[in-house]
Amino acid sequence: MRIFDIITKKKHGGILTDEEISYMINAFVKGDIADYQMAAMLMAVWFQGMNDHELSVLTQVMAKSGDSVDLSAIEGEKADKHSTGGVGDKTTLIVAPLVAACGGKVAKMSGRGLGHTGGTIDKLESIPGLRTSLTRTEFFSIVNKIGLSVISQTGNIAPADKKIYALRDVTATIDSIPLIASSIMSKKLAAGSDCIVLDVKTGSGAFMKTLDESIELAQKMVSIGERAGRKTVALITDMDIPLGAAIGNSLEVIESVETLRGSGPDDLTEICLQLAANMLHLLDKGSVPECRAMAKNAINNGSALEKFAAMVQAQGGDASFIYDTHKFAAAHYSRKILAAADGFISKMNAEKCGIAAAILGAGREIKGAEIDSSAGIMIRKKYGEAVRKGDILAELFTSEEKRLEEAEHIYKDAVAINEKEPEKIPLVFARIESEKIERY
Amino acid sequence: MRIFDIITKKKHGGILTDEEISYMINAFVKGDIADYQMAAMLMAVWFQGMNDHELSVLTQVMAKSGDSVDLSAIEGEKADKHSTGGVGDKTTLIVAPLVAACGGKVAKMSGRGLGHTGGTIDKLESIPGLRTSLTRTEFFSIVNKIGLSVISQTGNIAPADKKIYALRDVTATIDSIPLIASSIMSKKLAAGSDCIVLDVKTGSGAFMKTLDESIELAQKMVSIGERAGRKTVALITDMDIPLGAAIGNSLEVIESVETLRGSGPDDLTEICLQLAANMLHLLDKGSVPECRAMAKNAINNGSALEKFAAMVQAQGGDASFIYDTHKFAAAHYSRKILAAADGFISKMNAEKCGIAAAILGAGREIKGAEIDSSAGIMIRKKYGEAVRKGDILAELFTSEEKRLEEAEHIYKDAVAINEKEPEKIPLVFARIESEKIERY
Repeated sequence: MRIFDIITKKKHGGILTDEEISYMINAFVKGDIADYQMAAMLMAVWFQGMNDHELSVLTQVMAKSGDSVDLSAIEGEKADKHSTGGVGDKTTLIVAPLVAACGGKVAKMSGRGLGHTGGTIDKLESIPGLRTSLTRTEFFSIVNKIGLSVISQTGNIAPADKKIYALRDVTATIDSIPLIASSIMSKKLAAGSDCIVLDVKTGSGAFMKTLDESIELAQKMVSIGERAGRKTVALITDMDIPLGAAIGNSLEVIESVETLRGSGPDDLTEICLQLAANMLHLLDKGSVPECRAMAKNAINNGSALEKFAAMVQAQGGDASFIYDTHKFAAAHYSRKILAAADGFISKMNAEKCGIAAAILGAGREIKGAEIDSSAGIMIRKKYGEAVRKGDILAELFTSEEKRLEEAEHIYKDAVAINEKEPEKIPLVFARIESEKIERY
Repeated sequence: MRIFDIITKKKHGGILTDEEISYMINAFVKGDIADYQMAAMLMAVWFQGMNDHELSVLTQVMAKSGDSVDLSAIEGEKADKHSTGGVGDKTTLIVAPLVAACGGKVAKMSGRGLGHTGGTIDKLESIPGLRTSLTRTEFFSIVNKIGLSVISQTGNIAPADKKIYALRDVTATIDSIPLIASSIMSKKLAAGSDCIVLDVKTGSGAFMKTLDESIELAQKMVSIGERAGRKTVALITDMDIPLGAAIGNSLEVIESVETLRGSGPDDLTEICLQLAANMLHLLDKGSVPECRAMAKNAINNGSALEKFAAMVQAQGGDASFIYDTHKFAAAHYSRKILAAADGFISKMNAEKCGIAAAILGAGREIKGAEIDSSAGIMIRKKYGEAVRKGDILAELFTSEEKRLEEAEHIYKDAVAINEKEPEKIPLVFARIESEKIERY
């Protein structure tokens, strides 16, 4: 088998065999296929795509290129969720406790933030003492005991994806839906859960800017999951505007706690209930509406918040911060942004809001950089709300005063006030399971 | 400027600016752009193509990436020809003397053979003593004195092409018409002639298998030549069957001499007259029919043969071989291939004939390998000719007896005898000058 022939075949729109895909990925990881050959191949895939079977094989080979996490030490089925990334997306902190409170198991590996989007691990590490690097034994034992644990990705997970992604990043082949789908799903398959709920974000703050692209990506990921024997559902949710009101690490933990208490923002609460309902449904806890009602009840009776506090404690964190969020250190500097006119918030560009928060210290430009836990933005007037001149639109928080100026400038640019009330943006656009697309 | 953005633009079908093309090629030659990035770019070009302006700029930047041969030390306009390569293609050995005999100047750099196609330099070197590595001063002085010289390519000609070609060769991006056109023409532009006649081969023994592809390639090359200020014409000629009767180095020199004497095969003679006529026409020696008559006359009066002998002598060769071709050493072993039935030669696959000759020792599989000057094939019955069972179809020549078996097998596979007389194949399909395509 020669990579030359495989490139030629794909270039002409041919369908690769299982053996060709397997050879290509394994030889590339071993270094027997040169970067320039894989670069040509990836560009050919950018143009010609891959069908569902090719994509399924590709993703499974990538998933098996390194460590496969064996979750069998945890009793029963395990559910995972994955978000394609957004601004103010703290759903894992809320959804995992909701599912655990309803009897599901969540053994989740998460990532750190990069660029304008945050990462769950950074958010969790704003809780004093909390460790996200656990041994496999600790991880399994916590999930067995309390039903959930969220740790940072460890081990050699899908090295084929790592190597291919690095190449795509410098050869302009990131924006290929099949390649995005296989990249995400290779890590999800390797992470070992039986049930996977995908939160595919769409809009200005998401990688997928249009609903059609988002649905296409979701369909491909669901197909990959199902063909690998995992129960998989995708929700297409809005990321045209930030999710909830908090952007920034400890700010988002505080908002998550409020949501688990039942006093969180409506949009965040609703999306979390739907994600949790779908995870519980895949775990055979009932129909989606029944599962949603169970999750709602776990908020009302306090059991979800207890699960979150139990996880914080099990991972070495100070759970008293969860019961009294005033204990989180406040940022040294803050600035209020005021409305310059009467009207309605008619625009709230999620990406720009994320960039403003990153500038305040909540994000990092390059991998491994330090972040400022208390930095970020609290949005006081959300898209669609009526405001009067002088109202507080948002508060900026930072440890470095000089960052306020630029962040304010960007935030103001992200937001617009208009006389006319803007159209409502749906929270969830569609749900995809097997071949079925339900549009809302 | 970033290669990433240039790849992105081309991938989406954008038109690159002159500055983008120039940056891309020069930075790649310097090593500032990685092979994997150029590989992705080349694949994007394979899909999206390049328009005539982009291609013109690309080719000129590639031509200027190394030495540009300055032929101004040779008086008057110089004409070059280029063949896209074929089996039995000894036209340079005939056309250059024809043009010189009619007062034109030919200062030509040629290549060696590879695979199933021969190379002019290998053919010339079968003449004892003949040198093809000359200093620039010797080269210029010979052309000034006798009107022609053919040398092997020296110096750092179009290193951008060399580096890009090597990458295309391993990333399945050879078969891109714009990339083929820029590769050939970058070397022709760097070689410095004012007038260029392109012999674009079409058919089973050529790289371009169909007439449409051949015409597209020819149009692009003519456009590149003209945009670079060179007078350029292309002929599309047949390479479905071998050209002439001789395949192999000294065998082809002998056939060239016969053709210059007026007793060569009709197909070879006709193509050489047309190529020479077009070169002379571009050199302002008259209309194409007038120039053809001049070239015919140079055969009839012996002046073309004298020019060839003069070149052989000027380059250190033994010109007595030209006046008495029996002096060429014969191969040690030969075998006659006989017709197995009565009928007409209905098939003569040029590529397979070339492979059979290469197996006999006339060609090389890898660069730098030795070749056997006297090895090859003399075709005794050509496509379309009537044969009787037992007639000699061809004679095989080699220095290694064991090679006869495989070569005979392949030659027999290349040729078919049928009861029905086959259709005549035209010698020249079309002529392309500026925007004008004349089909014959």
